[in-house]
Amino acid sequence: MRMSLRDVDPRLKAIGDSPCNALRAHALQITQELAQGVQKSFSRVVDLYSVDPHQAGVPPITFLHQVLAVCLYPELLSDENFAVDVRQRARRLIQSCEGSSVGSYTPSCGLDYIQHRIAEFITRRDAGVPTDAHNIFICSGFQRSLMMMTKLLSSPEGEPQNGMLVPLPYPHTLAMVLAGAGVRSMPYRLREDAGWAVDLEELQRAIRTARECCRPMAMYISNPGNPTGHVQNRKSIEEVIKFAAAEKLFLLVNEVDQHSVHGSGIQLVSYKKVLFDMGPKYWDRVEMASFDSLSNGVMGECGLRAGYMELVNVDQEVMILAETMLCMDISSPVPGQLALDVMLHPPQPSDPSYDLYTQEILTNQTTLTENALRAQDFLDSLPGMSCQPAVGGVYVYPCVEIPAGVLERAKAAGVEADVLYCQELLEEQGVCIGAGSENGHMGGNYHLRLCVGVSSVLLEEALERLCAFHLRLLDSHRCEPHLEFP
Amino acid sequence: MRMSLRDVDPRLKAIGDSPCNALRAHALQITQELAQGVQKSFSRVVDLYSVDPHQAGVPPITFLHQVLAVCLYPELLSDENFAVDVRQRARRLIQSCEGSSVGSYTPSCGLDYIQHRIAEFITRRDAGVPTDAHNIFICSGFQRSLMMMTKLLSSPEGEPQNGMLVPLPYPHTLAMVLAGAGVRSMPYRLREDAGWAVDLEELQRAIRTARECCRPMAMYISNPGNPTGHVQNRKSIEEVIKFAAAEKLFLLVNEVDQHSVHGSGIQLVSYKKVLFDMGPKYWDRVEMASFDSLSNGVMGECGLRAGYMELVNVDQEVMILAETMLCMDISSPVPGQLALDVMLHPPQPSDPSYDLYTQEILTNQTTLTENALRAQDFLDSLPGMSCQPAVGGVYVYPCVEIPAGVLERAKAAGVEADVLYCQELLEEQGVCIGAGSENGHMGGNYHLRLCVGVSSVLLEEALERLCAFHLRLLDSHRCEPHLEFP
Repeated sequence: MRMSLRDVDPRLKAIGDSPCNALRAHALQITQELAQGVQKSFSRVVDLYSVDPHQAGVPPITFLHQVLAVCLYPELLSDENFAVDVRQRARRLIQSCEGSSVGSYTPSCGLDYIQHRIAEFITRRDAGVPTDAHNIFICSGFQRSLMMMTKLLSSPEGEPQNGMLVPLPYPHTLAMVLAGAGVRSMPYRLREDAGWAVDLEELQRAIRTARECCRPMAMYISNPGNPTGHVQNRKSIEEVIKFAAAEKLFLLVNEVDQHSVHGSGIQLVSYKKVLFDMGPKYWDRVEMASFDSLSNGVMGECGLRAGYMELVNVDQEVMILAETMLCMDISSPVPGQLALDVMLHPPQPSDPSYDLYTQEILTNQTTLTENALRAQDFLDSLPGMSCQPAVGGVYVYPCVEIPAGVLERAKAAGVEADVLYCQELLEEQGVCIGAGSENGHMGGNYHLRLCVGVSSVLLEEALERLCAFHLRLLDSHRCEPHLEFP
Repeated sequence: MRMSLRDVDPRLKAIGDSPCNALRAHALQITQELAQGVQKSFSRVVDLYSVDPHQAGVPPITFLHQVLAVCLYPELLSDENFAVDVRQRARRLIQSCEGSSVGSYTPSCGLDYIQHRIAEFITRRDAGVPTDAHNIFICSGFQRSLMMMTKLLSSPEGEPQNGMLVPLPYPHTLAMVLAGAGVRSMPYRLREDAGWAVDLEELQRAIRTARECCRPMAMYISNPGNPTGHVQNRKSIEEVIKFAAAEKLFLLVNEVDQHSVHGSGIQLVSYKKVLFDMGPKYWDRVEMASFDSLSNGVMGECGLRAGYMELVNVDQEVMILAETMLCMDISSPVPGQLALDVMLHPPQPSDPSYDLYTQEILTNQTTLTENALRAQDFLDSLPGMSCQPAVGGVYVYPCVEIPAGVLERAKAAGVEADVLYCQELLEEQGVCIGAGSENGHMGGNYHLRLCVGVSSVLLEEALERLCAFHLRLLDSHRCEPHLEFP
């Protein structure tokens, strides 16, 4: 009796239905073929499928890497090639580790010192709203903490299935997390025609539908929106909080892109700040988890695996269970925990590293801003595409009209039309982007997902090739006149 | 409707029953009290509860930390204060990262280059037994990969519960992993009187018992034994493999302490090597996962969170699902992945870092060997204790006779007698060790778990205080004559 898929818990198999591996695997295969000298019309694969800034040419932040190098090899504390503030920061971080070594375990929720530093950051960000360091849970990335919260919200065996309201479109990795935990995903549509706004009437429709087929426990929000790039204003956040309070929903707020807000004049206000400002009626009552991550578009430190969540108004026993669940991972990686400190507490104007740090962060932010604008303008001007402005986060999410001929071929092949579009784009032009159907089905309305948290050179190359493919496709399916590169 | 423990899946609550947090939390509290100036009969808490070498005074390996520092901050590639082999190694490792940055994601199973380097190591270790790099899954630690395999082996909702044969005693973190996955733990007793040998008759009894109450799918082995410190010989491993083949059990082999074998004349042979040597009847058939870790007693790199497993004879579809499950963690932390390369491929005799590296590793190994011997001798000579030799791994696991008075107090307090022993030891002498009941109940037969992967100074301090507590306890409960410090 060999272990086979037949024997495996269907919840796990449901994870396996996620489409995100196939296209990436294909991209990897093409890259390997190119390395082996296979001739193609392009010399490299450009990957805008999901965020991985350093891979995509966004430079790492010097101060952060200097501090980590010193923490890893404390002999460097006396190396005067490193600025004083680098060494001071590293010294303090090393002291926060057991046995003064990054090689020691930390408590399951993370280093006590870093929990306090995160709490300090949140209080500063939210203009004084109190934060208890005990409510901070450091994790090896946003995904891991979301998985844990989703499991806590899943229903026991044999009971009616628990459900979660999720935006449509949702982040492309969300479906597998819910499937893995056996939580039913109940979509509420964002209003594309209003810049992907959250719509109260639609929320009310969604909760009614949800109550007919599961036990809705929670509501997931992505702000800034992944993949939509919208940023909610205070009024919209207040509406969501009131709705959650009325419907007794636990709020899971993905705020990992809070460091990547780039729309002109756009200021992000956190859910926690709004909750506080709404007074005790809400502040003492609405249960919330807010997530942040080191892997955002500006720092781009995906490989270090670090993030944290803050729990608000969560039952003490549930908090202890959350800690025990983290305890199963033993602890999250220490270099990433230390990096969170640097991300949330940058050098100050009087520090020797201030200028370089500020310049590097600004460069990354500017690149992201310009990329988002450039991609939106470019795609919006292509025939058969329209693209809402992206004012936060790392994606643009254009709507694409797919020619009838492609729709037919997709139907015949048993794949989504946007997936086929992305496959052919990859094969023909070596550009890897996401099919909108991975972010949830929008009826016959197709979208593409492009990560703009990349170098501007890479983005330009991708847009150019995407344009060539798209126009060729329109040409061949519609016999349209030759179209110009915008 | 606030989320409360009532609503939570009982499988998750079962994890919370793990006792390992209470004592550690108490130890932390005492440490904080000491820091606040509270007067006690000791000035610091000595922690031998579980392995965390750097925290316990075992020094990090210089070469490893130099290489990682350079990888984190590649400007150091041109710093001639670092030896040529440090910089060469770092250069190669940096090249293996996407975008030449440790800040990039890696494939879910780990960096392709590191998978191949791990495969090379295994082939070398096993004298040429072939290893396919595609069978190597890099994880953020042993526990994480074990959780994944245990979940794959769990039963679907509504079907009879799947079971796993586990040694008694078992590693103290194993129970929570099985509980979290809903897999039933079915113990087979190791023979303490024969140096904790695996006993074939006992295995047969265990599988019969298991078949009466669940569907046994797998067998867990710890070799070297955690917490028992035994190392199986080839014959014993052959017996286990034949048993697993006959009973169609998946073998989960915890070999994380393969780098910490210290008994005189003891040579560890891997399960994979024995399986290969047994010929195609077994080699082509027995399903196995073998686990290794960076957090072992000699390197002690717990904070970097890295380990790997090799799957043997596992169904291709299940392998793909395993990869998808890892994909939910996105990827494991890069510094840890790179550190695996250094651990498995140390500097060679012609390399400038060879001498220091070898000397540091040897020092750590010698400390571990001497500690294991010292602890075993010391404890074995205490009245009311006996301790089997520990020839591998990081623990000693003495049997302790608990005075009748303590048994009564424990019963009255509703706690295990060994847990009460450890609590009182902690309070009275500031020594934190593990209660054997966390490693599985052995009837009225009590044990203690002491990690010896610590500096010899720390061990000596712990033994001295443990002795004082133990003799005081015997004195006060038995009115025995004053006993000498051994």
